[in-house]
Amino acid sequence: MTDLDGPEPHQDDRPLVLVAMGGHAFIDEGEKGTIEDHERNAQRIAEILMTLVEMDHRLVITHGNGPQVGSLLQQQEMAGGEIPAMPLDVLVAMTEGSLGYVLQQSLLNELRHRDIPRWVVTMVTQVRVDEDDPAFESPTKPVGPFLSKEEALRRQEELGWVVGEDSGRGWRRYVPSPRPRRVIQNRMVREAAHQGHIVVAGGGGGIPIKKDDKDRYVGVEAVVDKDLTSSVLATDVGASLLIILTAVPNVYVGFGTPEERALGAVTLEEIEQLRDEGHFPPGSMGPKIDAVIHFLREGGRRALITDPESLPRAIEGRAGTHFVGRV
Amino acid sequence: MTDLDGPEPHQDDRPLVLVAMGGHAFIDEGEKGTIEDHERNAQRIAEILMTLVEMDHRLVITHGNGPQVGSLLQQQEMAGGEIPAMPLDVLVAMTEGSLGYVLQQSLLNELRHRDIPRWVVTMVTQVRVDEDDPAFESPTKPVGPFLSKEEALRRQEELGWVVGEDSGRGWRRYVPSPRPRRVIQNRMVREAAHQGHIVVAGGGGGIPIKKDDKDRYVGVEAVVDKDLTSSVLATDVGASLLIILTAVPNVYVGFGTPEERALGAVTLEEIEQLRDEGHFPPGSMGPKIDAVIHFLREGGRRALITDPESLPRAIEGRAGTHFVGRV
Repeated sequence: MTDLDGPEPHQDDRPLVLVAMGGHAFIDEGEKGTIEDHERNAQRIAEILMTLVEMDHRLVITHGNGPQVGSLLQQQEMAGGEIPAMPLDVLVAMTEGSLGYVLQQSLLNELRHRDIPRWVVTMVTQVRVDEDDPAFESPTKPVGPFLSKEEALRRQEELGWVVGEDSGRGWRRYVPSPRPRRVIQNRMVREAAHQGHIVVAGGGGGIPIKKDDKDRYVGVEAVVDKDLTSSVLATDVGASLLIILTAVPNVYVGFGTPEERALGAVTLEEIEQLRDEGHFPPGSMGPKIDAVIHFLREGGRRALITDPESLPRAIEGRAGTHFVGRV
Repeated sequence: MTDLDGPEPHQDDRPLVLVAMGGHAFIDEGEKGTIEDHERNAQRIAEILMTLVEMDHRLVITHGNGPQVGSLLQQQEMAGGEIPAMPLDVLVAMTEGSLGYVLQQSLLNELRHRDIPRWVVTMVTQVRVDEDDPAFESPTKPVGPFLSKEEALRRQEELGWVVGEDSGRGWRRYVPSPRPRRVIQNRMVREAAHQGHIVVAGGGGGIPIKKDDKDRYVGVEAVVDKDLTSSVLATDVGASLLIILTAVPNVYVGFGTPEERALGAVTLEEIEQLRDEGHFPPGSMGPKIDAVIHFLREGGRRALITDPESLPRAIEGRAGTHFVGRV
């Protein structure tokens, strides 16, 4: 065997942090999502994440892929079926490759720039959902481009799609959003993170698979909530801290009302109560709060929701919304 | 930390085998490359690879992506630029995700079917090329769809593409094919493989990157030969055997002539001599022979070239072309 160049891996027991970000983190307001947009935004995020790396935390990163899968679906649509169209699970896999690459390149560059001897790897991650998840009965997530009513109904007929109107803007395909049960590659993520490598995993919420009637894994055309997958993965890899990055610096109660109040720190019990009081709408902060509650209930110690810009201060307890579970 | 379900990893020192296959392995003669085609062919390959798994070998798998990247390029072409087109390095990353997923799903199913407690993970792999590789001076690999002469020349003008006629069938873009120097994720591949996990890596020859004038990694629009990358990776992870799967059961000398003869076993010295005599054309067997020679020169002990169907017999020394290096 030849010598491998490159750094020696860490083998210590430093805290493991899982950081989740949205697919929109790669595309800023008003941008089209070119490769230059992706690279510039990834660069910015990588710089911010160096705060955690310089504290010598072990690090697992997850990310969404909404806009990117949307682009692939629209592109397939525009190509008009001359090239075989790939199903949604395969498109998610593609974005795990492309976004993982862009992110790991930026992270590697920041590590090299700082002379920090750590490596980065993206793992293509499958996530198992229950074959009898009730979500399969009622698809709720619109995906892909808008279609004419006629075209939508034709695909319902010919391809078995579930279609419906979306926000009065036209017809779209709807797919289910089942709960993530297990991240198939969780062991490899944990092992690599414990070695000190920065691991990108669970992109787009993971590639959804289920067991078929022959007990074989098969892909499903579904969208798994990336915050819930992040929570499941954080639990599985034994993360001590789950950080969910979003567009706002804090979680708010009474958002958009005169009583609006930013939360600084709350206990598991407090956040469960606020959730039950209906403070967090399903379309935006709701899934993130659900993810945090799931993580803390499963034994997680701390969680944090904030925006990338506030992260360095939030890490010092000076910004963001902090959630505390068991000590 | 919660218990992780799933098998205990192997921690032994069984031989590590690297198996390389082409992107055409996923698309059989006359097939269009639908997801069903990909899954069926991956399934067949996974079953064949179980021969190695049942011998308890550690296993790293690499694969090509020619037809799949071709489809993505054509699709971008047909979408007409309304969705931002992604450069070649990002498209390679996408195929690492999609083909890695299809392959790891089939492998997982075969492992589960056989009650073999091992895991599978695909790693998104960057491969570094020299910024002053002479290949950059003369792009030789045609990629993407055929264009009219006018359209080709327009892109040469506007996008800086190198274009030219291809096989008298029309105009295409040409990109360089620099030599792979180092697989960036080689340490993580090696660690996971040594744990007993089956690792898919280096898909499409790896995502080509180079250092820019600020010493930062940047993607390059190039095609790295997947057999050469497989050889570099096999060396870096300390593989004792490199297997290159192709469309024919053996390597031949005098191929297509009355003196055609299948090679059974040859030494490093013999194959170097045959190569120098011009027996292996650059477009087909040449790069595979170069990859084998590189691997053996770097200290590899054995290599094997055969087709998937012959692999089980080849492993027993009853088929295929075997190459022997140092003992």
